[in-house]
Parts: sequence; structure tokens; C-alpha cells
Amino acid sequence: MKNCIVAQSGGPTVAINASLAGVISGVMNSSEYDIVYGSLNGITGILNNRTLNLSEIFAEGKPMLDRLITTPAMYLGSCRYKLPTADADPAVYENIFRFFEEKEIAAFFYIGGNDSMDTVDKLSAYAEQIGSPVRIIGIPKTIDNDLCLTDHTPGFGSAAKYVASTFLEIAHDTYIYKIKSVTIVEVMGRDAGWLTAASALARNEYNAAPHLIYLPEYAFDLTQFLADVKDLLTKQDNIIVAVSEGIRDKDGKYISASSTAVDTFGHSQLSGAGKTLEYFLKEKLDVKVRSVELNVLQRCAAHIASKTDLEESFKLGETAVGLAAAGQTSVMLTMNRTSNNPYTIEYSSSPVCDIANKAKEVPRSFINEQGNDVTEDMIDYLRPLIQGELCISYENGLPCYLPIKHLLG
Amino acid sequence: MKNCIVAQSGGPTVAINASLAGVISGVMNSSEYDIVYGSLNGITGILNNRTLNLSEIFAEGKPMLDRLITTPAMYLGSCRYKLPTADADPAVYENIFRFFEEKEIAAFFYIGGNDSMDTVDKLSAYAEQIGSPVRIIGIPKTIDNDLCLTDHTPGFGSAAKYVASTFLEIAHDTYIYKIKSVTIVEVMGRDAGWLTAASALARNEYNAAPHLIYLPEYAFDLTQFLADVKDLLTKQDNIIVAVSEGIRDKDGKYISASSTAVDTFGHSQLSGAGKTLEYFLKEKLDVKVRSVELNVLQRCAAHIASKTDLEESFKLGETAVGLAAAGQTSVMLTMNRTSNNPYTIEYSSSPVCDIANKAKEVPRSFINEQGNDVTEDMIDYLRPLIQGELCISYENGLPCYLPIKHLLG
Repeated sequence: MKNCIVAQSGGPTVAINASLAGVISGVMNSSEYDIVYGSLNGITGILNNRTLNLSEIFAEGKPMLDRLITTPAMYLGSCRYKLPTADADPAVYENIFRFFEEKEIAAFFYIGGNDSMDTVDKLSAYAEQIGSPVRIIGIPKTIDNDLCLTDHTPGFGSAAKYVASTFLEIAHDTYIYKIKSVTIVEVMGRDAGWLTAASALARNEYNAAPHLIYLPEYAFDLTQFLADVKDLLTKQDNIIVAVSEGIRDKDGKYISASSTAVDTFGHSQLSGAGKTLEYFLKEKLDVKVRSVELNVLQRCAAHIASKTDLEESFKLGETAVGLAAAGQTSVMLTMNRTSNNPYTIEYSSSPVCDIANKAKEVPRSFINEQGNDVTEDMIDYLRPLIQGELCISYENGLPCYLPIKHLLG
Repeated sequence: MKNCIVAQSGGPTVAINASLAGVISGVMNSSEYDIVYGSLNGITGILNNRTLNLSEIFAEGKPMLDRLITTPAMYLGSCRYKLPTADADPAVYENIFRFFEEKEIAAFFYIGGNDSMDTVDKLSAYAEQIGSPVRIIGIPKTIDNDLCLTDHTPGFGSAAKYVASTFLEIAHDTYIYKIKSVTIVEVMGRDAGWLTAASALARNEYNAAPHLIYLPEYAFDLTQFLADVKDLLTKQDNIIVAVSEGIRDKDGKYISASSTAVDTFGHSQLSGAGKTLEYFLKEKLDVKVRSVELNVLQRCAAHIASKTDLEESFKLGETAVGLAAAGQTSVMLTMNRTSNNPYTIEYSSSPVCDIANKAKEVPRSFINEQGNDVTEDMIDYLRPLIQGELCISYENGLPCYLPIKHLLG
């Protein structure tokens, strides 16, 4: 027998279950592989022997896979476990590869972001070192869109669609009062401004909001910000501002009030760029000021997912199975844009060592000269990613997602 | 000629344009009335002569009205203008009724909440006093569901659907990590807990969240809250808590950190019940704690509106025109639930003086004994209100709403 195992890691997105569905479908249609197992809570499920037999669970095929595709977050759960180096803790690696042997695993698929690709990289190197034939393949996902060597990342398009729709709805909500006001909307993105930039897609024939957009890639200057807002207030009543949670000043210091805590991956824990700017403007201006933090909804609002995003994510999962069967290992799946209009994508792969622990920032040419907006190039890049809607089913007035009882044990 | 004028006031909802569409449709189909005007920014549009000819704008009928129905917030804009008493400022009333005479207005429809019904009440009394034949009719709307003498209010069902869906999506987002965590979600509702209670609709076969629900109608006790959370943490990993922005202690003091500002209607401006509890728990517990504020999205997320809500709101607008034509005045439209299963509603009206400046609180029987959850009676009451989805059209990846250029002049 030749089996596979798949796991999900990092922060949730709307599309990460679509890639899982792609892997399951790929194995079901493969002549190379038999059973596909799921490891619960990322790689830790392998370490703790907590797995599901996905071939059994999804035996009915398409109807259940379709429901998995539109279910937000991770069907298999996630983890924030940082794999130690093989030198520091060889026992961890021995346990993982013993599990692979016992379950006759021939391929391991890890769906995740930057930190998960670090795990793929380390496991690949170890497999090579011990001469294990197990293929180790990374499948990207992150709403941050900050993985290198891929045109964009699964999950980003849906988050971008949520952000753009929400800015449009906030514009409708804001324009109703004939008073001077500033609404600051904080969008996720610790180091990369891609998602904040997607707010620009809310602009249309009647809505020019967001009127200002600030990304972490361009040094934020409070004095210039105040000048930008004051200038706009002389021309119009309501101003809507998009700010990334990760905006920082020219010395790299976060604008957010509290940036002291450090998570297990060494990242600063942010909160409150929007709140900080709200309090700042309230002191300086005599107009209504409020801030809105989009928070977790931008990564889990499956009811407004991008069809393009979910279809691509599924395809990546399926393609990963094919690549493993063809003998590839130590790679992450990638997407290359071959044309913008009409939008076309080719699926490929790149060595995971060139991707792990690196981040793709917004290029300077996608930010305007003054650093308070994005350019048309950015909008042309973003627009295709939010296209299309998937019909999700409702039951009793609510979106009908796949039950996740197995995560609650 | 006999014309009408309609205006919208107070905070936005997803359904307030559906009632506007109902009024426009009602006038179009009426043999009694000719033109329907729209007053921009509530009653202030009449005072400043800023009106639209809605009969002209919506002359094409159904296709454009359908788009109006699914457009969030107020097509005509809103105001937070409190009408002075006729004794204090007779000129304001003289201006309004001079406008009515000049435009041959026979009926005025005001779509709004509690404060707007105060305006309807005052204008009705003045009309009677001066012997004016103009009918003054209130059409309810508020996501707070706190208007008296109506089973529920337009806009509430859609907000409730958004809140319930969001809690379900937050549950999917939360259960992925196998760590102890508390997620506090703050829901709108200054004095009434109806919308916070709607979070209970997110519960299903696999999801028991929210695990705790706190409404403003029951005195909030920090010590008991800590005990509730600690008790649950001994039984499960992830706890999701729903709190109303307006929770207060036994002395009526708001739990939120900042409750000092007072708006033009004399209400305390709240923010941060969720944040306050987050900081409190972080001090007391050694688990991950975060808070999420649903903020303006709960009142403007038209892309997940309740079909039941929008249909009822439209019907109320249409019915209002019929009632005015039949000679009614000084009333607010109401809905009476005649059966819960199957859910049926009758449309009626009540004297606006019995409704204005009063609030409908959640009854004690809808809150559990310990004050940390709602009862089955509450769930039975809420469930029908979130049923059904309206197909909204998308263009270029975004919901296609009706342009509101006229608000931006």
C-alpha cells in the first residue's frame, strides 16, 4: 500500500479547506495512492497519533467535498508548533518518520503559510538525509499574500473580496450623515500590505473610498497623515481611511499602541493601529472620528468567498497529488499568471527552501508617490482575484458548513 | 395634486431601503397619490429644501426597486436632528408645513427608530393643532429591536442573521487550535439585548458557541463572569462569549471602559465592553484571550440579509401608503405575530405616542436563571426572523448596490 497524509497549519483562511478537498479528490482519482489520512492540528497530529481516515469520511465524494470547499478555517484544525531543527531534537523527526513507515505514507502534504513552509523545508532535508522516499510537498495559503515565487496565495482572493465588499458597505454606512467625519478601518497584514490594498477595489462610479490607504511597506508619518486628512476635509464631508495593522514609522516602530508581546515564532503581537490613529485624530480635529477593526472576519467569512480563489485552491491540492506521484519533493506549489486580461494561471512548483522564511512585500511601483494610496498597477493585479461567487447552501437561515466535531474532543 | 414625501432617520440598517422601496411602490400603485418625494438627510432635507423626485428616479419600476431593496444603509441619507418642541421653536414647524403646502404634500412617511418616532409624534400633534390634513406616519426600523407594540422591527432580522452567521464563522475560526482560549464578541445594543441574544442561533449539532451570553437587561457581575468562564475552562478548550455593548453592573454602571460622552439625544456613548472584559480576563487567567467588536458591519452587511426581513420591510412601506390613503395619521406601522410555526405576521398600526421614547427590553423569561444565557423561548422567537436569502447581484466581484452620488454633494 501507498498512502498519503495531509495537514493544515497557521492562521485560518476561507480557502484552506478547498485545497484539502483538492488533495482528497486527487488521491481518490489517483492510481498511485490508496488511503489519504488527515493529521489533526497540523504536524502535531502525527506526533500525537491523532489522525482521521479521510478516504473513509469523504467516501461519498463530490457532495461532501463541495461542502468542505465552502467551509471556513481548517477542517483538520491547526497548530502554531515550530518544528525544532533535527540537530536540536532528533527524536521529533524519528517519531514523524516512524509514523510514516507504520502507516505506509508515501507523501505528506502541508497546507500553510510561511512558517509551515519552514516545516516542509526541514522535513524534506531530513528525508533526504536519511534516504526516506516520502515526498514532502507544501501547498500555500495565507490571507497575507506574502509568499514568494507564487503570483498570489490561496485564501488571499477571498479575504480581498471580503475587505473590498466591507469597505463598500462601510461607505454606504458612512455617507448617510451630512457631517464631517473620519472612519479608520484597520485591515490584517503584519508585514505585507496586500490585503489593505484590496480596499481600493471598493471604489466605483459613486464611491471614492477609501480616500487614503497606508501600507506597512511605506514609512508612516503622523504629521503627513494629519495633513492628508485635513486637506481632504476641506473638499468633502466623510473620509474613509484604510490602514494595515502593521504600519510603522521610518524607524520601523509600529504605530499601534501595544506591540510588546512576542509569539512563538518571534513575531510582535499587534493591536490597535486603527485605535491609535483614532485617538490621535480626536485630539487634533474637531470632527467625528471612529475606527473599525475588521478582525477575524476577514479570514473566515466564507459566505462571501471568491470563486476564483476557491477553484484555484482546490486545483492546487489536486495538482500537489499529481506532483508527488510524479516524484517531486521539497517543493511548494505555485501559481504563475500568464495573462491579466483575460486572467489566466499556470500551476507549477518551486523549491520550498527558496520560499520558507522569506516574505513578499508590496513593490514600490504598486504604492503611489506620496505613500498614501495604491497605483493602477496594484488594482489591475488585484481585480481578477476577487471574481466570482460560489453558491453556498443555507439551512435554517445560516450557512451550512461541514461539522467539525472531531476538533472538539 | 396629492403628493407624498418620505425620509429616513437614525442609524442605518440593511432593511431601511426596503421600506423606502415599499413606499415608492405603494405610491406608484396608488390612485390616491401622485408624486413621491424623498427628503435628504431625514427631516432636515425638508427644512433645507433638499429633496429628490423619487417617482422620476424610480420610474422604470421593479428592476431598480429590487436593487434599492438590497442596498444597505439609507438611500436618502440620515440625520441625528432632534426636533425641538413646537413651543420652543415654532418657526421650524411653520417651515415644515409651509413646505408641505407648497409641494402639495398629503402624507409624510418617516422611516426610523425611537427618536424618529418622537419626530412623528410631535409633527402629528402639531398637524392636529393647526388643523392640517397631512397624514404623518412612522415606519419602524432598528437593528436593536427595541420598539414597543410591534413583534419585532425591520432591520433586526438581517442584523440577527449577520450576528448568528458571524458567531458560527468565529466558532470555525476558534476551534482550530488545541489550546485554552476565550473569545469575547461584542454585539451592538445599548439598552436592549435582542441582537446579542441572536448569537444563540449559531448553535447547531456540532457548535455549542456562544457558551455564555450576557445582555444589558441582567445585572452583570464581574466575579460571577470569571466564575462562569473558569468553570467552562475545566470542561473544554475554547470558549466563545457574546456580550452586549451595553452590559452594566447592578448599579446600572456600564462595564465598558469609556462611557463619558453624551450624544445629542442624551445617550451615553459606549465603546469597549468586550475590550474591558478581555483585559480583565488576561489579568486573571493564564489562557489566550481576545475580543472581537462586530462594529458597523452588523448593520450594513447587505450581502447576508434575511429575506424574511427585507420582504416584511417592503410590505410595511407599501402598507403605510395604504393606511395614509385610508385616512390614518399619528401612527407607526406594526407587525403582530399570529403564529410561530408556521411563522405568520399581520400588519397593523398603533398610536405613535404609545411608542415614541419608550424601549422594549428583553423579558426576564427570555433570559436563563443565572443570567448568562437565553432560553428556548428566545430562540423560538428569533429563529423565523433570519430565514431566507435574497439573491443579490455582483458586478466585478462586488455586491452591486444602488449609487448614492446624491448624498455626496
